[in-house]
Amino acid sequence: MKRILTGITPSGYPHLGNYVGAIKPSLDLAKEDNESFLFIADLHAIIKISDAKQLKELTKGIALAWLASGLDPEKTYFYRQSDIPEVSELAWILSCVAEKGLLNRSHAFKAATDSNKENGKKDVEEGISAGLFSYPILMASDILCPNATHVPVGKDQQQHLEITRDIAEKFNKKFGNIFNIPEAVINTEKTVLGTDGRKMSKSYNNIIPLLSDKDELKKSVMKIITNSQEPGEKKEWKDNILSSIYSSFANEQSIKELQNKFNDGIGWGDAKKIVFEDLNKLLTPLREKHAELSSKEDYLEEILQSNAKKVRSFTKPLLEEVKSSIGISKY
Amino acid sequence: MKRILTGITPSGYPHLGNYVGAIKPSLDLAKEDNESFLFIADLHAIIKISDAKQLKELTKGIALAWLASGLDPEKTYFYRQSDIPEVSELAWILSCVAEKGLLNRSHAFKAATDSNKENGKKDVEEGISAGLFSYPILMASDILCPNATHVPVGKDQQQHLEITRDIAEKFNKKFGNIFNIPEAVINTEKTVLGTDGRKMSKSYNNIIPLLSDKDELKKSVMKIITNSQEPGEKKEWKDNILSSIYSSFANEQSIKELQNKFNDGIGWGDAKKIVFEDLNKLLTPLREKHAELSSKEDYLEEILQSNAKKVRSFTKPLLEEVKSSIGISKY
Repeated sequence: MKRILTGITPSGYPHLGNYVGAIKPSLDLAKEDNESFLFIADLHAIIKISDAKQLKELTKGIALAWLASGLDPEKTYFYRQSDIPEVSELAWILSCVAEKGLLNRSHAFKAATDSNKENGKKDVEEGISAGLFSYPILMASDILCPNATHVPVGKDQQQHLEITRDIAEKFNKKFGNIFNIPEAVINTEKTVLGTDGRKMSKSYNNIIPLLSDKDELKKSVMKIITNSQEPGEKKEWKDNILSSIYSSFANEQSIKELQNKFNDGIGWGDAKKIVFEDLNKLLTPLREKHAELSSKEDYLEEILQSNAKKVRSFTKPLLEEVKSSIGISKY
Repeated sequence: MKRILTGITPSGYPHLGNYVGAIKPSLDLAKEDNESFLFIADLHAIIKISDAKQLKELTKGIALAWLASGLDPEKTYFYRQSDIPEVSELAWILSCVAEKGLLNRSHAFKAATDSNKENGKKDVEEGISAGLFSYPILMASDILCPNATHVPVGKDQQQHLEITRDIAEKFNKKFGNIFNIPEAVINTEKTVLGTDGRKMSKSYNNIIPLLSDKDELKKSVMKIITNSQEPGEKKEWKDNILSSIYSSFANEQSIKELQNKFNDGIGWGDAKKIVFEDLNKLLTPLREKHAELSSKEDYLEEILQSNAKKVRSFTKPLLEEVKSSIGISKY
C-alpha cells in the first residue's frame, strides 16, 4: 500500500485552477486504496507571510476549501503541519545529516537570489531568510516524519524531493534502515487557463472563483475573452479560451456536445451560458458544503486536532526510533 | 531576578580544567539569587558526533559529572535539550525571521570553511552540514525558548549571542514584545594549564582527571613538568606550571603557604605531594558522589525527566504565544 503525502500551501482565494490542477487529482488519488496524508503547510507559509491575521485567514480558508471539495477527514490524515512537533524536531536532526551544499543548489534559494540579481541588488542574498534557505530540510522532514512512500510533485518540486531522497538514503546508511525512500508521483499538471487566456492565477486577476456565489461566478465566466465572430459562424474549438476552460472540468460527453455546437455556429453568449451552468452545477455542492462548514464554529478545529492525534501516533514512535538510532535515548 | 542559561556540550572525559573553568563558576552563579537553566546540548552534539554509542556515553557522562560536582537538580533546571520539543519548534520559526546573511558570518561556520581551506580542499564547504551552518539559530532557540535574561559566554560564543539578540529584537519589533533580549555574562575565563604547560585539553593528553581514582590522579600530578632545580634551591612561583595549576583550585591561604615553601626551596617531589593531597581532598567528595550516582540505575533519568517537565511549563506557553503572534493558532 502506498502512503501518499501532500502539502498544501495557503494560496489565497481558491479558484477553479486550484481545484482542477491540485485538489481534484489529489482527492482522486486518496480514493484509491492508499493511505493519504494531507497537511496545511503553515510552517512553510511563514517563510513568505509575516502578517499574522492574513496567515490565519489563508490557512483556514484553504482547509475549508479542501473539505468543501470533498476531502473526507475520516479517510485522509488531514492535519496542520505545526500541530506535529516531531516535524520540527526531525528537521533539526536531518539538518545534521544533510550537507549544506545541497541547500546552496536548491531551486527555491536560487530563484530568490536570481530575483535579487534581476532587481539589481548589491547583496544577492538580501532579504532571504535562513528559513527559505533551509526549506528543503523542513520539506524532507514533512515527508520522512510520517514515512511516506509516494509524493505527488510538480516539476518545480522534483529537485526538492531528490534532496529528501538523498538525506533519507544517507541517514539509513549511517544509522539503520528507518526511512522509506519516497518516490515521486509526477503530476501531469493540468494547467487551467484564466479568463484572459493566461494561466489562471490570482495575480493576473483572471480567475474563476471556486466558492463564490452564483452571480460572481457568472460574471467571471462572462469575462472570458472570445473573438468577434457572430452567431451562425462556425467557431474553432482549438486555441479557444472558452473551450479550454470548459474542457478542464466538464465530462467527455458534455465536451463533445459543446464542440458540436461550436461547429454549428453557436453564439458566444449562448456558449458562455452553457459553460456557466455546467460550472455552477459542479460548484453548487462545494459552495453549499463550504457554507455549512463555515457555520459550524468548532468543526474544523476538531477535525484538525483529532487528525493530528492520529498522525502523531505514527510520527512519535518514528522520532523515538530516529533519536535512539543516533544516540539520543533514555539513559 | 536573572534567568541564566547555560548549555553543556559533552566533552569527553571530564578534567580539572572543565571543573575550574566551567562547572564551578556556573554552579557558583546558580547559588546566587538567580534562576538557573542548565542543559545538556545533545542536539548540538550531533553536529559533530555521529556515533550513537559514543554520544550516549558522553552526554550521560557529562550529566553525572555536573551532578557529582554539586549541581542541585532541585534548584537548577537541569535538562536534556532534546527533551524539550519547543526548542526545535521555535528554531524553525526563528529561522524564518533571521536573515541567512547572519549565518554566513557565523564564527562556527567560518572556522569550518577556514579549516577546509587550510587542508587544501577544493570545495571549502566540503563535509559541512546544514546543521553546523544553522547552529546559531538553534542556539538562539535554546536561549529564547525559556526566555533567559543572561547567558554566560566565552569569547568564542559572544558573536553567537549577538545573533540571538538580533533575532529576538527583530521578532519583538515585528510581532510584539515576547522575548527578553538576553545579556552576555562574560566569563573571565580561567584557563587551567595541563601537565605540560599548554591549556589543559584531552587532545593534548595533558589532563588532570576530575573523577578518576586516587592512583590515577596521583600519576597525573606527578607528570606535571618542572625544571631541574634541586631541593634547597629557591623556586620561582611565576611562570611555573605546578604553581599555576595549584592556584587554579586552592584557596588563598593554601596558595600563600605553598608560595612560601617555593621561596624556602621545597623539592619538586614534596611540592607535588602537597598539590596532589589538596587536589585529592577537593575531588574525593566528587568521586564518591559520582560513584553513588552511577550506582543508582534510574536516578539520572528521573531527574532529567522531572526537570524537563518543569522547563516545559515555561517553554510550552511561550511557544503558544509565539505561534499565536505569527498567526498560527486555533481556528
